[in-house]
Amino acid sequence: MTASFKGIDCLAVVGVGLIGGSLALALREKGLVRRVVGVGRSRPNLETAQARGILDAFTHDLAEAVCEADLVLVATPVLSIAEVVGRAKPHLEKGTVVTDVGSVKAAVVRDCEAALGADFPFVGGHPIAGTERSGAEAAFPELFRGRKTILTPTARTDPAALALVRGMWEAAGAEVVEMDAEAHDRVLAGVSHLPHMVAYALMDAVAGLEREDGRDYVGLSAGGLRDFTRIAGSDPAMWRDIAVMNREALLRALDRYGESIAALRRLVGASDGEGMERYFAAAQAVRRALLRRAEEEGG
Amino acid sequence: MTASFKGIDCLAVVGVGLIGGSLALALREKGLVRRVVGVGRSRPNLETAQARGILDAFTHDLAEAVCEADLVLVATPVLSIAEVVGRAKPHLEKGTVVTDVGSVKAAVVRDCEAALGADFPFVGGHPIAGTERSGAEAAFPELFRGRKTILTPTARTDPAALALVRGMWEAAGAEVVEMDAEAHDRVLAGVSHLPHMVAYALMDAVAGLEREDGRDYVGLSAGGLRDFTRIAGSDPAMWRDIAVMNREALLRALDRYGESIAALRRLVGASDGEGMERYFAAAQAVRRALLRRAEEEGG
Repeated sequence: MTASFKGIDCLAVVGVGLIGGSLALALREKGLVRRVVGVGRSRPNLETAQARGILDAFTHDLAEAVCEADLVLVATPVLSIAEVVGRAKPHLEKGTVVTDVGSVKAAVVRDCEAALGADFPFVGGHPIAGTERSGAEAAFPELFRGRKTILTPTARTDPAALALVRGMWEAAGAEVVEMDAEAHDRVLAGVSHLPHMVAYALMDAVAGLEREDGRDYVGLSAGGLRDFTRIAGSDPAMWRDIAVMNREALLRALDRYGESIAALRRLVGASDGEGMERYFAAAQAVRRALLRRAEEEGG
Repeated sequence: MTASFKGIDCLAVVGVGLIGGSLALALREKGLVRRVVGVGRSRPNLETAQARGILDAFTHDLAEAVCEADLVLVATPVLSIAEVVGRAKPHLEKGTVVTDVGSVKAAVVRDCEAALGADFPFVGGHPIAGTERSGAEAAFPELFRGRKTILTPTARTDPAALALVRGMWEAAGAEVVEMDAEAHDRVLAGVSHLPHMVAYALMDAVAGLEREDGRDYVGLSAGGLRDFTRIAGSDPAMWRDIAVMNREALLRALDRYGESIAALRRLVGASDGEGMERYFAAAQAVRRALLRRAEEEGG
């Protein structure tokens, strides 16, 4: 843990959902935040957050929420982050640090740095954690424990601001990894954005086959398809925004995946049993590496 | 339930794994089988099956196992079913019914009918049930409860044999669905074989991206990818055989899936947010239909 992290006096959380709420709870649990102010659109959600001890106060007014903050955590949908930061700027006190938790980084960091200029330090962040559930109701302080949080500093990033944000995530139990925003976007395109596209496309294909055949496919599927498609239940608007904002890296991942599917199709077409077994066994090895990591992380 | 099912006097189970073992346990629990003889290669597995009350006796000799059986259940890997049936034939008593549980049906039914000729009735079957675990150790009598079992009778199928096999699966708690073997293979290609190929290909693509980038992807993945790839942990040899035996239907499904991926790639490439949201929402609707079915089945 970064020895210099002394906690945060006043934290403003913009978008009090699973991520923002869990972070606030984790910091509170350790006595590392004195006051948390939440801002959002849904009053019932903010009331829940206050009732659960996540927030000391809430408001619908961004200016009011951020004006006393030492740290502003922007946890809104990825497409809105830079706009929120731009609206917050005129109301920030000198020295306030701004950070985010968006799952796309290059565009967000570029736009937030442009919005804040040289006046306020920005640190791009992305905790690799989440559950099926969302909202303040779903928040819990252990969410980040043993998980990674990626920070994406640039040449412009203020070292003290970076240390503060790093210290905060480490205090919440996360392992902090620093990389540049483009690298983050390429990696996440592969391990998160691509899998979501693949799951959506599978649902599309099964629906298409069902229509072509005029026969009930869905009723004859077993657990395999259901488990597989859990992530196809994710919010369409969120994934639309991610796909728009991480276009280049996602196209690269989709093209690579297209090659993988085409190679497998050739093996099936040629009834190349040996080739298929090799392909499947290699894929299984990647999966085993994933499971090993999961065990190491206790996740 | 088929009123005419009076139980089975002597059941031979060839391949005493999760499926064969669970079926025997379900029939035993209801007192619908007098004697169960198991045959297989692994002595420890057969000993486990006997210790767990699945089997009354076991042998490594197929001829010995089937010679007194009223019903022979072949639950061996799909590529070996017809060969097993052919080897069993000379040792069957007049009137013995043969059935299987293979996950590909057209080729299996054709080859088993050819092997048995007019001498013994064959009924192709496929219970849509399974777990991560395998072997007699994993068997449990409730496996088929509320699940579907597909039977694929042909013009040659003996009605009394079909009624016996139907009655047996219904007694084990399954809902029996009859369809022709080709239709079965098309549906399963879509809802089971394709998802496995998609999962294997995703692992292949992530490994490829990781290599290209020279960066740790797997270590930065969250639960989404791990859950998604559970089925990529399945046995490569089994999936090789399924892909070989269900080649035509699987190619059709892979081609349809290729179109789904290509359509999504076009939307991402065009940053067509509206089109993506429509695509994702439609995919989500298919997934919701799946979940509704799962709830109805209590599965």
